[in-house]
Amino acid sequence: MNAIQIKNVSKQYKDVMALDDVSFSFEYGKIYGFLGRNGAGKSTLINIIANRIFADSGEILIDNDLAKENMNVHEKIFCMSEVDLYDTSLKIKDHFKWIEKFYNSFNKEKAFEIAEKFNLDTNKRFKALSKGYQSIFKLTVALAIDVPYVIFDEPVLGLDANHRELFYNLLLKDYEESENTIIIATHLIEEVANIIEEVVLIDKGKVLLQSNVDSLLEMGYSVSGPASEVDAYCIDKNVIGDDELGNLKIAYIIGKKTQLSKESHLSFANMNLQKLFVKLTEKGGN
Amino acid sequence: MNAIQIKNVSKQYKDVMALDDVSFSFEYGKIYGFLGRNGAGKSTLINIIANRIFADSGEILIDNDLAKENMNVHEKIFCMSEVDLYDTSLKIKDHFKWIEKFYNSFNKEKAFEIAEKFNLDTNKRFKALSKGYQSIFKLTVALAIDVPYVIFDEPVLGLDANHRELFYNLLLKDYEESENTIIIATHLIEEVANIIEEVVLIDKGKVLLQSNVDSLLEMGYSVSGPASEVDAYCIDKNVIGDDELGNLKIAYIIGKKTQLSKESHLSFANMNLQKLFVKLTEKGGN
Repeated sequence: MNAIQIKNVSKQYKDVMALDDVSFSFEYGKIYGFLGRNGAGKSTLINIIANRIFADSGEILIDNDLAKENMNVHEKIFCMSEVDLYDTSLKIKDHFKWIEKFYNSFNKEKAFEIAEKFNLDTNKRFKALSKGYQSIFKLTVALAIDVPYVIFDEPVLGLDANHRELFYNLLLKDYEESENTIIIATHLIEEVANIIEEVVLIDKGKVLLQSNVDSLLEMGYSVSGPASEVDAYCIDKNVIGDDELGNLKIAYIIGKKTQLSKESHLSFANMNLQKLFVKLTEKGGN
Repeated sequence: MNAIQIKNVSKQYKDVMALDDVSFSFEYGKIYGFLGRNGAGKSTLINIIANRIFADSGEILIDNDLAKENMNVHEKIFCMSEVDLYDTSLKIKDHFKWIEKFYNSFNKEKAFEIAEKFNLDTNKRFKALSKGYQSIFKLTVALAIDVPYVIFDEPVLGLDANHRELFYNLLLKDYEESENTIIIATHLIEEVANIIEEVVLIDKGKVLLQSNVDSLLEMGYSVSGPASEVDAYCIDKNVIGDDELGNLKIAYIIGKKTQLSKESHLSFANMNLQKLFVKLTEKGGN
């Protein structure tokens, strides 16, 4: 099976059960949104997959091989991480040289090209970069590595809107060309809603749901129009959130659409993935 | 004049002109979005207003008093910052005690209440917090200080969607009660579009525009419907961006709406503030 298979993985930190008997798979060739609240266990799982920390129990298989301390597997996967594992006093261009020595699949020329697109000054030392540009350096490395499984952990932290758009475009272009597996852990859910095909949502160390994005969005819908009409429509519905703009309102509803009268000024649209996420994980923070 | 008046402020770092003769005002009682790309000069100006660094030339007046090293002014303004100025080995609850000594307007009880809403563990040391919770600590302090001018610099960096929503709600509640001036510097423009009244956009160290949000959104509009119809409609329009979902499309257009035929399946809606920002600041990166 071409996939990252997570089998009964548990990990405890002192009194916190970070991962509690977690089992699911990231299948080869898809783009995943790996979602969850702060502290839900996302980064812990990513670090276990990346062999940076070890699970208390359970195992990870990559294309049916055990991932733990296995060099064959190491060549198939790359995890961009929030954690700074880089020598902060080294210049970016020198980082690229070192990464080329360690990763056969790293394309240094491509890295310099991507850096140029982001206006990343490769003569600067890592520690001289702003938070946004530290993220850009890390996602540049991840985009320049051609392996079957690439995991991005909060890739756009601190990036401005233009750079976020550039990143999503580069990612989709790579995906169309390579068909590698891309896994994006992010809190900016609405921004990736149009990019990802599958969602894995973890909450308090457990998988809360795994679903195709389209099926997930079919759980509900949004209705918009004059605020008073929207309110009247919503009276007997399961409303999970709303937004207002002047006297217009949009409400997000779980359930099936009902027929509108001919005189109605309301219109239906798709569910908002971020609103759905917020509702599903309410009181799930810590 | 009750306002933060920025008058001909310039600041140079080596060969970079971070702020180039910048003049504008944040008027009392409004909510501002202070927008700009990475490196545009936002944080430099915030740090000058906060007396953390000094301008090369120009001056800042707060309610007509010079801000530079003036204790009367210091009492009127608080800047939450991206930079970590806190003793990282101190526990959060002890930070609250110290801040109470330095700021008369800091409400310690309110800070503990807000911390509880965010599930911020006040017995933890600052350095033991995740990036998201470090932001939460800093915004908790800013929300618990009642001064006429509060500046938030990237308040939601690393926060999950639920916590971002909680922050926006607490901010609006405070604003309704106090009518203080709130200035939010953020890259998550679409999320604050419904909150802010005024926008100040700086680019390459200069003010690119200052506008009421409603007027700004009237610069353009969006059109949505079946992709082929949207494409046909857009042929002679100034399209600044689009999004697709299945065979549906939404396009963002600068200009005035034109009449639709009766048979049209298209519908108009408001401009997207983030799309507009991206277009206005293209090639504006560092």
